[in-house]
Formats: sequence, C-alpha cells, structure tokens
Amino acid sequence: MREKLMEMLETRKDEMVEIRRYLHENPELSFKEEKTAQYIEDFYKDKEVDIETNVGNGHGIIVTIKGGSDGKTIGIRADFDALPIKEEADVPFKSKHDGVMHACGHDAHTAYLLILADSLIKCKDEIKGTIKIIHQHAEEVPPGGAKSIVESGKLEDLDAIFGIHVLPLDQAGTVGYHSGYSFNGRTYFKLVIKGRGGHGSSPDKANDAIVAGSHFVTAIQTIISRRINPMTAGVITVGSFDGKGSFNVIKDTIEIEGDIRYSNNEVQQVIKKEFHRMVHGLEEMFDVSCELTYTPDYPPLYNDPELTEFVAEVLKQTEDKDIKDVKEFPKMAPSDDFAYYLENTPGSYFYIGCTPKGVEEPYFNHHPKFDIDEDAILVAAKAVGHVTCSYFERS
Amino acid sequence: MREKLMEMLETRKDEMVEIRRYLHENPELSFKEEKTAQYIEDFYKDKEVDIETNVGNGHGIIVTIKGGSDGKTIGIRADFDALPIKEEADVPFKSKHDGVMHACGHDAHTAYLLILADSLIKCKDEIKGTIKIIHQHAEEVPPGGAKSIVESGKLEDLDAIFGIHVLPLDQAGTVGYHSGYSFNGRTYFKLVIKGRGGHGSSPDKANDAIVAGSHFVTAIQTIISRRINPMTAGVITVGSFDGKGSFNVIKDTIEIEGDIRYSNNEVQQVIKKEFHRMVHGLEEMFDVSCELTYTPDYPPLYNDPELTEFVAEVLKQTEDKDIKDVKEFPKMAPSDDFAYYLENTPGSYFYIGCTPKGVEEPYFNHHPKFDIDEDAILVAAKAVGHVTCSYFERS
Amino acid sequence: MREKLMEMLETRKDEMVEIRRYLHENPELSFKEEKTAQYIEDFYKDKEVDIETNVGNGHGIIVTIKGGSDGKTIGIRADFDALPIKEEADVPFKSKHDGVMHACGHDAHTAYLLILADSLIKCKDEIKGTIKIIHQHAEEVPPGGAKSIVESGKLEDLDAIFGIHVLPLDQAGTVGYHSGYSFNGRTYFKLVIKGRGGHGSSPDKANDAIVAGSHFVTAIQTIISRRINPMTAGVITVGSFDGKGSFNVIKDTIEIEGDIRYSNNEVQQVIKKEFHRMVHGLEEMFDVSCELTYTPDYPPLYNDPELTEFVAEVLKQTEDKDIKDVKEFPKMAPSDDFAYYLENTPGSYFYIGCTPKGVEEPYFNHHPKFDIDEDAILVAAKAVGHVTCSYFERS
Amino acid sequence: MREKLMEMLETRKDEMVEIRRYLHENPELSFKEEKTAQYIEDFYKDKEVDIETNVGNGHGIIVTIKGGSDGKTIGIRADFDALPIKEEADVPFKSKHDGVMHACGHDAHTAYLLILADSLIKCKDEIKGTIKIIHQHAEEVPPGGAKSIVESGKLEDLDAIFGIHVLPLDQAGTVGYHSGYSFNGRTYFKLVIKGRGGHGSSPDKANDAIVAGSHFVTAIQTIISRRINPMTAGVITVGSFDGKGSFNVIKDTIEIEGDIRYSNNEVQQVIKKEFHRMVHGLEEMFDVSCELTYTPDYPPLYNDPELTEFVAEVLKQTEDKDIKDVKEFPKMAPSDDFAYYLENTPGSYFYIGCTPKGVEEPYFNHHPKFDIDEDAILVAAKAVGHVTCSYFERS
Repeated sequence: MREKLMEMLETRKDEMVEIRRYLHENPELSFKEEKTAQYIEDFYKDKEVDIETNVGNGHGIIVTIKGGSDGKTIGIRADFDALPIKEEADVPFKSKHDGVMHACGHDAHTAYLLILADSLIKCKDEIKGTIKIIHQHAEEVPPGGAKSIVESGKLEDLDAIFGIHVLPLDQAGTVGYHSGYSFNGRTYFKLVIKGRGGHGSSPDKANDAIVAGSHFVTAIQTIISRRINPMTAGVITVGSFDGKGSFNVIKDTIEIEGDIRYSNNEVQQVIKKEFHRMVHGLEEMFDVSCELTYTPDYPPLYNDPELTEFVAEVLKQTEDKDIKDVKEFPKMAPSDDFAYYLENTPGSYFYIGCTPKGVEEPYFNHHPKFDIDEDAILVAAKAVGHVTCSYFERS
Repeated sequence: MREKLMEMLETRKDEMVEIRRYLHENPELSFKEEKTAQYIEDFYKDKEVDIETNVGNGHGIIVTIKGGSDGKTIGIRADFDALPIKEEADVPFKSKHDGVMHACGHDAHTAYLLILADSLIKCKDEIKGTIKIIHQHAEEVPPGGAKSIVESGKLEDLDAIFGIHVLPLDQAGTVGYHSGYSFNGRTYFKLVIKGRGGHGSSPDKANDAIVAGSHFVTAIQTIISRRINPMTAGVITVGSFDGKGSFNVIKDTIEIEGDIRYSNNEVQQVIKKEFHRMVHGLEEMFDVSCELTYTPDYPPLYNDPELTEFVAEVLKQTEDKDIKDVKEFPKMAPSDDFAYYLENTPGSYFYIGCTPKGVEEPYFNHHPKFDIDEDAILVAAKAVGHVTCSYFERS
Repeated sequence: MREKLMEMLETRKDEMVEIRRYLHENPELSFKEEKTAQYIEDFYKDKEVDIETNVGNGHGIIVTIKGGSDGKTIGIRADFDALPIKEEADVPFKSKHDGVMHACGHDAHTAYLLILADSLIKCKDEIKGTIKIIHQHAEEVPPGGAKSIVESGKLEDLDAIFGIHVLPLDQAGTVGYHSGYSFNGRTYFKLVIKGRGGHGSSPDKANDAIVAGSHFVTAIQTIISRRINPMTAGVITVGSFDGKGSFNVIKDTIEIEGDIRYSNNEVQQVIKKEFHRMVHGLEEMFDVSCELTYTPDYPPLYNDPELTEFVAEVLKQTEDKDIKDVKEFPKMAPSDDFAYYLENTPGSYFYIGCTPKGVEEPYFNHHPKFDIDEDAILVAAKAVGHVTCSYFERS
Repeated sequence: MREKLMEMLETRKDEMVEIRRYLHENPELSFKEEKTAQYIEDFYKDKEVDIETNVGNGHGIIVTIKGGSDGKTIGIRADFDALPIKEEADVPFKSKHDGVMHACGHDAHTAYLLILADSLIKCKDEIKGTIKIIHQHAEEVPPGGAKSIVESGKLEDLDAIFGIHVLPLDQAGTVGYHSGYSFNGRTYFKLVIKGRGGHGSSPDKANDAIVAGSHFVTAIQTIISRRINPMTAGVITVGSFDGKGSFNVIKDTIEIEGDIRYSNNEVQQVIKKEFHRMVHGLEEMFDVSCELTYTPDYPPLYNDPELTEFVAEVLKQTEDKDIKDVKEFPKMAPSDDFAYYLENTPGSYFYIGCTPKGVEEPYFNHHPKFDIDEDAILVAAKAVGHVTCSYFERS
C-alpha cells in the first residue's frame, strides 16, 4: 500500500498546489471560515467516508475513513483559518480578501491533507484500522477550535494523532521533529489595581496606584528570574500599563494587561501560583485592591516521546527521494492548539521545511510577505503518508 | 492717619462686599481677565495716581500712590483671576460664567485692595513714601503673572512688599503669619522613555519600556525618602504613566508626567539634581533613551523673618476690634506666585481667616462650594492698612 | 523674690562651674550613675526638703520644695548620665573614666539645677506652691529613666514641667524655644526574613531571601515618600542588611535592622501601620516568613504651645543682662525622653546656647570634643528661675 | 579489534573496581593530587607509550598511544581530583582522608580509563591513528586543569575528543547523550558599592549603600526575565549581600557576591554586557561608586552535533550486552571544564548511568553519601571503547 500511496501523491502534486493557491486567494478569518469549510465538504462529496460538519465551536469537519479490516484509530489534523494581515507577498495568487491572508501556511496544510485523505480513501481496503481526518477551524484565535473538537467527544476513540506545520527553518525536503514539550503554552491576564486618588501635593491623603503598579511590575520579574526552573522557558510580558492621568493628580486606578508563556505544565503551574500570590501580596503591601483576570489559552504542546521517535525513525529510514533530511528541530516559542489533542491522545506534531528556493533569510510565519516552497506540500503529504502506513503496519 | 484710615475702611465695608460680589459673578480665567482689568482701571479713573496697565505678560495693573513726603516704597498685591471650576456654592451672587469660578478668594483680595487703595489715596498727603498697588492677573496658571511683573522692572524700587490670602483655617478676625518658607514651590516634568518594541513571547528581541519605567518610578521614591532633609518637605508625584498598549506586544515607548513640590530652594536643587541623575542612570541601566522636560513653576515662597515678625507684632499690638486674634499658621502645601516678588524684595504674605460663620468643616479653596465670611474682607483691608501705617511710621 | 533669686544665682556662678567640672571629671554611664546620685543626695543633706531616691528604674531623685503658701506644683528636670565616648576635648577637668564622657552637657544641666534648687529652697517661704526638682538618670539609653519616673506616680500632681538642654547652636546668653513637636521620636526594628536555601544554579528549588529583602528595602521607601504628610518628618533607615553568605549558595535567611524617626505621633502611627503592612505583604508576595521586632523608644517631644509662648514672653520681657537674646529654634532631629513628662503634663523644654566663645564651628553634642561656654550654666539657672517666678506669679 | 578489546575489558572488570576503590580510599583535593598522579604514572611504567607529566597548571598527565598505522588523532579524558566533602557513604572502601571524598565519581572515571588505555595499548598495532589519554587534574576548582592543558599546546593535533561522566540519572547499562550545549557555563562576580555613611536620622547628609544595593538586586532580575532568550537558560544568584552594620548608622559600603550561569555563549555575552551596563547605570542613578570583579569560570559545554549523533548511533547499534539503553539525557545545570577541550576540538561528552541497584532515589554527585553501581565502570570502558573503534573505522 505504501508504494501505491506514494505514487498517487506524486502524481497529484499539481492538484495539491492548485488547491493551496485557491485557498490562498480566498482566505477567511478564524471562526468565519464558512466558504473554506464548504469547499472542504464539497471535496469529499460522493466519497466513501463519513463526514461530520460544524464540529465543535465553529466550522470543524471530521472525515472518517474506515479501513478494510479492524485495527487502531488515528487522527490527522490540518487547520484552515487565515490571519487578519494584509498580504504583501508578490505572488500571482495573492489574497483577494483585503486584510486577510494565509500567512501561516494553513492553506498548504489543508491542501496536502485533502489529497492525502483522498488517496488514503482509494487505498482504504488495505488499511487495518480507521483514520479520522480533522479539518480544524480557528487555530489562530483563542479559545481556538481544537479544544471544542476534543470536547465534542468525537475523537475519544483515537489511539494516536499526527499533524504537521510548515516552517521556513529549512528547505523543502527537510522534516523536523521535537520530542516532549515543543510549543509554549500561554495565558492572558488583566490586573486592575485600585488605590485612592488625590492631589499631587498630598500623597498622604491618597494611595498612589502607579507606585503600587510599578512595584508589581518589578516584583513579578522575580517569578521568571528566581521561581521557574532555568532549564525551561517562561515569559511574563506586561504589554500594557494604562495609568494615563493628569500630571498633578494622584492616580486612583490603573490597568495592567499582559501575556504569559511557558514551555511545560510545571512552569505554567509555578507561574500561575506565584502570580496570584504576588497579586495578593501587593494588596497587603500597598493597601490597594486588585481585580485579576487570568485566562490560560493554549497549553504547552507535548509530543509523545515514543511516537515522536517512531516518526523520526520511520522518516529517517524511508528512502523516499522527496524526504531528504530528517532532524531535530528546536522548541518553538509560539503556541498551537494542537496541544489540546495531545493532552488527550498521544501523538506527534512535526515540522515541514518550506523555505522558498534561493532565499537566504525567509519571511517567517505571520509576516505579510510569508511564502513557501510549494514542494513542501508533497513532502508533507508523503511524510504523513509514511507515518500512517508504518503506524498501521506496526500495530 | 491710622485712625482716619480705619474709620474710612469701616465705613466702606459694604462697598467692599459689593465689589467682591460683582467680581464673583463675573469671574474670568487666568490670562483672559480683560473685563476684570477694565473694571479695576475704571475704578481708579480721575484719582490722583499713576496707573500702568497691561503690565507683564497679561492684564497686570500697577497703581502708584505718591505720598506727601519722600520715604520708602512698598508694594501691596492682590490677584484677580478665577478658576476653571463649575460653581456649586449656593449664593445669590453665583458665577454667571459657566465653568468659571472665583473659588480661591481672589474676588475678596481685589475688593479689599481697591477700597484700601482708594482710602490711602485720600490720606496720601500724610504718607511718608510711596505705595505701589499691584493688581495681578493670572496667579492660578504657570508661568503666572507675578514673574513677568517683576521682570518688567517696575517694582525695582520697592523696599518691602505685602499681600494676603483668605484661608478658611480660622474665623474672620483671625490673622495668621508664618516666617520663612511658607508655601511650597513646584515643578512639572514629562519623561518619555524609549525602548524597542517586539512580540510578547520574545523579550530578548525587544527592550521593554514598561519595565524600565516601573524601575524609574520605584527608584525616584528614594529621592524623597533618602536624599532630602527630612525636616523639610518634598513630593514627587507621577500623576500619569501612559503605557497603554496591546497585551502581547512589548511596549516601545512610555510617557510619564508628574508634579514635584518642595518647601525651600535647597530641597528644590537637591530634587532637580537627583531627578536628572536618575534619568541618566536609567538610560544606562536599561539601555533606553529618555527625553526629559523639567519645568519649574513657582518657587517656594519665603517670608522675610524680620518683616513677618514686624507684621505679627503690629497686628498683635493693635487694639483693633476687628482683628481678634493673630497667630502663627502652618506652612501651606500649595504654591503661590507671590513667591516671585519675595525673591526680589523682602516682604510677608499672610493669612486672613475666612471660615463662614457657623460652619464646622468649611470647603477649602478650589472646592466648587468654597465660600467666605465676607467680614474677612474688612479684616484684610484693616490688617494691611495697619501694616502700611506702621511701616511708614518706623521707617 | 525674683530679684533676690537672681542675685543669689549670680553670686553662686563659680559654684555651678565647680560642680559641673566635678561631674565632668567623674562621668557615669546610664543606669550606672551610683556615685553621681550619691553626690546629688549629699548636696541636699540637711536642707528643708523631701528627698526620694532610687525613683523609677534607676538612680532617679525627686526633691520636693514646699513653698510658703499653697498653689500650683511644677517640675524642673535635669538629667545626669554620661555617654560611652572617649573624651578628646582638651580641658583641665577631662574625664577620669576612660571611655565615658559628659559629651551631652548633662553635667551642666545638673550643676545649674542644684544651685537653682538650693537658691529656691532659700526663698521658699515666698513661693506660692510646690516645686519638684527631678534629677533624672539614664536619658541616653532607651528605655531611659523618664518613663519609669512618670510611671512611679510621683509626678501626678504636677501642673507644669520645664527643662532645658544646652546646645551649641548659639552663644551663651541666647535662649531658644520651639512650640509644638520639637524633637523627633524614634523606633528600633529588626526584621528576620526566612526563605529557603539552595544551590545558586537552581533558584527554583530555593526561595531567595536576599531578593525578598531587596524588594522590602525598595518598597518601604514609599512609606516615607508617599504615605506620610510631606510637611512632617519621617525617616526609615535600614542600617544593617546582614545577608553575608557564600557566592553560589542561595541565602535562606537575612536580618535587617534599622531606625525609624518621626516628628509627631500621627506620623509615628502611619509609619508603624504601613511598616507592619509591608512586612505582611512581603510574606505573601515572596512566600517568606518574617519575624519583626518593632520597639518604639522615645516619643516625639511636644512642647505645650501656651506654656512655650509663656516661656518665650517671660524671657523676652525680662531685662536680665545675662539673657541677651530669646528666639525660635528649629526642630531637632534627635530624641529626648523629656518627651515622656510632656505626654502627661503640659510644659516646655527649651534651649540654652552654649557655643564656646570665639569658636565658629563648635563640636556638637555627642562629639568627643564637645565643650560648652560655662557662662551658659548661669543663663540656664536664670532662665529657669525667671520662668519659675513668673509661673507662680501668674497662677 | 573491537571484539578483542571488549573481551579484554570484560576480563579486567575486577581490576577496574579494585583501582576505583583504591582511589576512593585515597582521594586528593584539586591541585593537590600528587599521589594520585604518581599512581597513574606508575601504572604506565614499562608500557609502550609516551608519557608526559605535570602538564598544564598541575598534575596533568598525557599518555600517547601510537597506532600501527597513520590516521586521525583522538583524545580521551578522565579527571582524577576529589572534593572537600566528609564522606558519609557506608562503604568498606571509605575515604581515608578526613574531609576529602571522591563524591563526583572521578575515581570511576580514572579506573575505567586506565584499563581501557592498557587494553588499547595491547591492541595498538591494529589502530589506524593515535590516541591521547588525558588524565586531568583539578576539574572541581576553577580555573581547573583543562584550560591549562589545552593551552600547553599538546592537544593541538587532536581531531576529536571524548569523555564521560557517571550520573545516577539511570541504572548501569544506560548511556546518555546530549547534542549541542549540554552543561551550563558560569561566572563569579563581586560588586562593592560605595556610598557615604552617616547618622540614621539624617539620610540627606549620607548616601545609603544598602538602598542602592537593593535597587541593584531588583534591577538585575530583569536581565534574566527580559534580556535573555527565554528558550535558553540563565541564572544570576546574589549569594551574599554583606551590609551588616549598626541599626542607626547609614551604611557606606556594601559587598555583593554571586554566581552567574548560562547555557550557551550567546546568553553569556548578553548577561555580561547587561550586568556591566547595570553597574554603570547604578553608579549614575544612585551616585555611588562601584568596583566590579567579573570572572568567567568554565564556559558552556558544547557537544559537537555530528560527533554526538555518531556516538549515539554507534552505541545504539552495537549489540553489546552491557550497553542496554542509549538515550537522550537532559541538559545539565552544573559546569565542567571538559568544555575547554570542546572549544578547540569537536567531540562529545556523554553520560554513564550509575544508580546503585535497588535504589529509588539515589544521592546525587557531590552528596556526602554519593555512591555508584560499580558495573557502570565497565559500561564506561566499553562505551568509550566502541566509540574509539568506530571512530578509527570510519576515518
């Protein structure tokens, strides 16, 4: 089956590119991907699969391919939402929707997965198990689509889940893997600090919220510098300190907002605990009252070590001419809601090099000039195809 | 002459009240006191005085009363501008100009001084010297009127200067004095701190201006707590910390504004030096660039000890039935540009109790419900009259 | 009586100097003034007075002089302990006790009071009331002697209390007064901050007490800079930050000690409350445990305004040739346990100028080279004598 | 040759254990390993090798084994110094030198390398190249022995270098590897901050070094929290804050000492630059003068990725019964001067599991009860033997 599948994928490379370009020209924002979802649904029409639409909190789609014989069940996920970015890339298939752009490669993710899914459907009698193709909406904007799809219960029977992300860290042909924690998790916070206003000349009659807020900002630095394991990653950014007022009036209330990142669950817990402690301590220390909103978004993404090694070995040992290099990639600072699937099902989320040919310093994901080497789409299809074949073989 | 003067003042008490009420109904903002100035000018028409209008940077008026024989020259000043406050006092002569109010008593100051001046004009043959009546515009808004009147050179011949302020610290009949530094000086500052923006997850690629600003706010506290003489007064209020931004974007630039107060020139110099030092240190410590605007407004007001004791003794020893109590008043936290006159001429600025009868907790100056016991106007006229008589007697 | 008293004092000037020199040569440390107390007791032997020894927590002595007729009761206090300072003054009557010195002028205080008391005893039939002469031990070392003497109950019948301190702020002949709060109060504190030790490379396994302590030091600056009335005085000095340890071991416990000063009771209360709040807040903010010792010593010294004005007026109006100038003195930063008497009895503690003749920059009290112009002793005796006479006259 | 070598090693397992125990009983401190060096020198007597003693700044020994034919040159290093720790392990071969202990496993390192070297000497005709056996002194105490051995120039001809460390992270039989930066580098610093002393009641007359130092401690937290790449490791520990003084005297000078750690050279450079910047900024901000001693010790240890993958593959593919598991180990927080060799020669430093059998929570290196499973010594010998054989095979 592997040989047949790879042949099909190679033959349909142009089709993948065509789909990717169509999606690229027609990007839709997170939670608003109506036409994209319809396009995907249409793709599967008349194919021998179960299809569920509007899964989760948006336009999520699950396509179930039942193999010829019983066995394990795996999930393969690709996301399909775009970003509120005005495209600046000079490509013939530039976004037709002003201010919306597939600047993260989700167009390529969906393109490869549609063709891979169709090819798997064609081989399905040879599959010993079940494949759930997950076309996910709204990866870019918390709370994201993944969490709600998991909570729908429709993936409870998965034994493993796989996914890829295109990244211009290397050229097309390179596949990257990382075991364990691989993308950071993140939390949003807002802290309102209330003191008591007054005239600038009489601080004793007031209680200066700007002074309390400044001490808070300096104090929370120690959570990162002294509280978390230095071999892990944690970031607390106060992105907004809203204390605008009149120069000679003591400010009664300020509002701080920020972004917290962490590379694993332990760090997440430490930061959460210490941050709350600091807020309570501040209230006592400066006699202010605080209102804290603390909202975790995506968790840190944890690739199952055993399945990641499996992916790495499968791809290293395949002698596929399109998969030229397989190597460890570094941890990623951003966050991805694929993490939610991995909280429930072991799996591995890996990387497909996509640096455009001849480019030394490629634009990174989310840049208005982001572009990919479209050869990477076939690499993605083949890599996930190989992993799928090997997974059912070993089961 | 003293007896005659006091009799005239007593007789004209109603006139003073009338003028005060007229001015109260027709308040004008600092630097815009056109009609008030005209009213004052008209008052002196056909009187035997020299009158100079538009003195300094606004509607300042100097009226010179030449006495019958040569001698010393003294100045007596009253200010006549109002505040941008919507009156809430329930009085029949309420402000007719919405949002403008004589909430600091300058109406009373001008009322007493007009009648006192006119009475002195009537006695002028008996005066051994010269009196300059200074009707000053724009006391409430820096740079104020006083500095420019001093700089006009028209007061260079003064030997002494006197002035009063009504204060609801005591009842009408009480006069307060304070020797040496008596009102605080003040400075406005604005500090722009420029770091380098970036994504919240990657602080190392940016330079967080909010963190630098917070350390600045905590560091400058030590100027007050450790650098100035604890037996003097100093205040640094950061009234505005404008660092509003997006929660997950590292802020590149923030703007801090504030108000600095000091009870004497030495403290002023220490704070100025240390504040500038801290700004330079911050640039080095956090690799930010700073733009500092540091604008001293009014200096600390220094009452000449000898003349203040003179005022206190004169008033204590007079047996005037309207001056019931003469006592030391505390230092005042606010600022007054009478300080500029005192930088050039020895003098004393003293207080006239004005708490409305029967009121336990009067509204203070600048409050929308501020009001005075109008008996205080006569007290002011008599107190300054006594001081004037005694000054020429002793010369 | 006044005339007679003054004559006696003038006649006995040499005797006062002799006593002062004797005491200067034989200084004794606070709470160890056995021989000094015996000397004083012997002085009163066979005089018509009641004498009580060992009053309070040490060698305090109260000598009661009953006047010829009934009336008010006043106290006059002089302290008699010396300091643990090695004298460097080049005087013929240098201290014979190595490392102990009358460097604060208590020798002069006692000398004038003995002769004044004896002279008053000689005039006692003319006195309309009672005088309690208080020879106080242990002023220099908290808890001091004054508090215990007050608590003995033996002064409950006092109507007023007076005392003086020699100060080289002016020449002999000058008497200084200050109404209201005049000496600062003070508090000693010790704060032990316990975190958790660990290896320098693993801060997450420990809890760094040095970091918590540093944040505490920066935070308490705001008590002085933002919490107390800027027109009053407050100081918090951390004189000791004991965090010595090994460079690569995270410190588990540090110890901070310091000194707090305040110019009045309100400031004292604010600092106390905020300091305790900060300690509790620190525990929460940094998850440390704290042990705080907070020990107020002497309270701020409050001179009764009415009696202080009385003293000033009496001395200004006397035409005594030895009292050449009477003027307001500034507030004093140090502390004096005379404050305890004034908490219970209205009174006034005033100053006797003592700058040695011809000296421009005299050594201040507590300096190893401190010395006085001995003419000041007679001035002290006369000043207190005048006040005493006038007090009984007016009663 | 591989088969023969492995047989020899298995046969000589007891000999390795014997040597290890002898060394364990006779530990010597860094730079004082005279007898240990003599023992090693004696071991090679009459063997066909070149031996150089006293290499570098101490008792370093380089033994050169010339192979039968020309080829590449590799180094194999084992350290032989002990620690100033009083042994608490309950073993029959306990340290005979009170307060000195082989608590880091250098005894095992030397034991395996002596026998491996001797076995290699016996096979040397089959070796296509040269092997330099490096018995290194003084790994535990900066500046260490490695730097000076490198600087001796005697290793300039190396093509690769290998070494191992026993670690109770896993059982004997497990070998761990880590590519790239693997041990942290570190720097010692001492900062003397000089202000100006004074009396606790008069901060304006002094310049409080404790306040400046506290602000420094809070400010440098931001180097770790905001300046370094969060995906890397950096630690600044202030282990000592020596500001002990009298509670009511303002401290003029304090001394801070600490330890800085970093996982790679880039972080090292960032911390160094920012730390110096902060010191200069502090001088300006608080008007203090600073003396900074900043002494980098060992650099971060960088394992060559290609050679580390080579080691991992060689060991994974060998079917040696004693090498049961080969896996990635985490980065280590400590430092090792093997880093100096790797700055000059590509190589790999890897880990030999040594958890005593049946022990759940083993004592870690440097603990007074540290002990190893002696089977790990043979594993070390075989692992390095396999790597050596394969290296020459592939050359």
